[in-house]
Amino acid sequence: MAVYTDVSYEELESFLAGYEVGAPLTFKGIAEGVENSNYYLSTGKGAFILTLYEKRVKAEDLPFFLGLLEHLAAGGIQCPLPVRNLAGAQSATLGGRPAALFTFLNGVSLRRPEAGHCAAAGTALARMHDAGKGFVLARRNALGHDGWAELVEACIPRADEIEKGLAQLIREAHADITADWPDALPQGVIHADLFPDNVLFMNGAVSGLIDFYFACNDAFAYDLAVMLNAWCFEPDVAFNVTKSKSLIAAYAKERSLSAAEREALPILARGAALRFLLTRLYDWLNHDPHALVRPKDPRDYSRRLRFHNKVRSIGEYGL
Amino acid sequence: MAVYTDVSYEELESFLAGYEVGAPLTFKGIAEGVENSNYYLSTGKGAFILTLYEKRVKAEDLPFFLGLLEHLAAGGIQCPLPVRNLAGAQSATLGGRPAALFTFLNGVSLRRPEAGHCAAAGTALARMHDAGKGFVLARRNALGHDGWAELVEACIPRADEIEKGLAQLIREAHADITADWPDALPQGVIHADLFPDNVLFMNGAVSGLIDFYFACNDAFAYDLAVMLNAWCFEPDVAFNVTKSKSLIAAYAKERSLSAAEREALPILARGAALRFLLTRLYDWLNHDPHALVRPKDPRDYSRRLRFHNKVRSIGEYGL
Repeated sequence: MAVYTDVSYEELESFLAGYEVGAPLTFKGIAEGVENSNYYLSTGKGAFILTLYEKRVKAEDLPFFLGLLEHLAAGGIQCPLPVRNLAGAQSATLGGRPAALFTFLNGVSLRRPEAGHCAAAGTALARMHDAGKGFVLARRNALGHDGWAELVEACIPRADEIEKGLAQLIREAHADITADWPDALPQGVIHADLFPDNVLFMNGAVSGLIDFYFACNDAFAYDLAVMLNAWCFEPDVAFNVTKSKSLIAAYAKERSLSAAEREALPILARGAALRFLLTRLYDWLNHDPHALVRPKDPRDYSRRLRFHNKVRSIGEYGL
Repeated sequence: MAVYTDVSYEELESFLAGYEVGAPLTFKGIAEGVENSNYYLSTGKGAFILTLYEKRVKAEDLPFFLGLLEHLAAGGIQCPLPVRNLAGAQSATLGGRPAALFTFLNGVSLRRPEAGHCAAAGTALARMHDAGKGFVLARRNALGHDGWAELVEACIPRADEIEKGLAQLIREAHADITADWPDALPQGVIHADLFPDNVLFMNGAVSGLIDFYFACNDAFAYDLAVMLNAWCFEPDVAFNVTKSKSLIAAYAKERSLSAAEREALPILARGAALRFLLTRLYDWLNHDPHALVRPKDPRDYSRRLRFHNKVRSIGEYGL
């Protein structure tokens, strides 16, 4: 959480000359987002977020991400809307990097969402899935189940440095999950990273969804499985079945879950736990001490994986 | 430039229960300030900055810093005003750290101020010096000329790793400056760090002064000498006499400089260059690679010091 590319006021001024947003009243780097540089900007015409894309977001993916936000906003989803510049483009160059300007969303993300918040977020996810229909571009899930093998191989040799037995846990889970992965579930555009950080609330209601930089085409139910992991465990990694029940029920009320999707939830949840375990483990093992981001503890996700490994049916998630 | 202490929404909510500022609409960590954690907060009652004091600001100095801001604001200076809580206190505890809430100032800091901006900032400095009169608390300048010896000793052994001849430059400048330091100049509360980062502008006029965490009691003219270093050199460290003339003239128009102060400017400017050279060099040599701040290049200030070493009179600053 830091600003990687320093933007001077003078650079900002020349960048904004290409937009119809007025002169800056406030311009501050904000500590948000995984590996982009983000600035809060206010002008006489409102508040904005300026994002500079650092190496992790590929320039060729920008039309998908920016186009998706425009598509979702047109479909009634509260998400950052890219502000087009005078040339009609959704992005331009700033500080040698692709950069885009977005409308600013009010709201705060919760650290300890309660069951009611899980329900509200579940409804928001289902609405996003519906609103994503008809979006013409597609993006493969680079961190989907067919991308895990590479991370497994990269992490296994040193996994036990982090936690005894972790290499075996990963290897077995990966083999099982890959063998049983359900490939025929309803698909569409998913967020793929809808953690509580990425949902803004105002007065208990969802006021916005943010950070779509893992969005891709994959099974809708996998998105729900990511949320089961991210929203329904307590800080001590105890599973809170009241939260999962609220989350799934609220989602299903907005977009009905097929029998196949319900049945697949346990394995999708295992897969989602493995995905975040692998990326956290990889980042932990390969952390550059000079980086401005502190890596997250992978063990939060090995414990979730162990929980889901024992789940036999969706009933254990409260339904 | 980073956020060191992570504040959850729930912690924020309980902290704000002690204030009359309303419920948060937006809460974002901002990449600002040297070693504090800062958050941008907006509520129905306006915009605020929430600061958590990390180890560098000592808790016992807070009454000076916070009291000074209140005193200056009452004197008409645009600076962050500490918002008192329901108990009437200027600070409270958050995340195990002393924390204070401030009114938010609009405006942007400039990277490449022009002569007109130097003049506006010089006027603002003089007004701040006047407004500081009558403030009852005092704070010694920990980085004043009597505090440099310790930094000199800590830096000298490895100074030449950074630049050939740097140890000798520092040792000689320190001896000369200390021997000739003017001790009888008019004193009062100074900002002591009024770099362009710490001056906000709107439409070419100063809209606020920020970051008073080096403020202390010292010679007024020393504050001006800090600005000569920070505002009047080009990126290639060429001295811009148009800027220095604008700065000094605007300052003196608002608060007249005595003959002794004018005469002392060259040595004060050398001292200020040495002070920033020493602290940057110390931070460079002792940089923790895990720190979330990138150290600044000390050579920007060895070059300034070499420039001032050759200055014989205030005439060379354009007056």
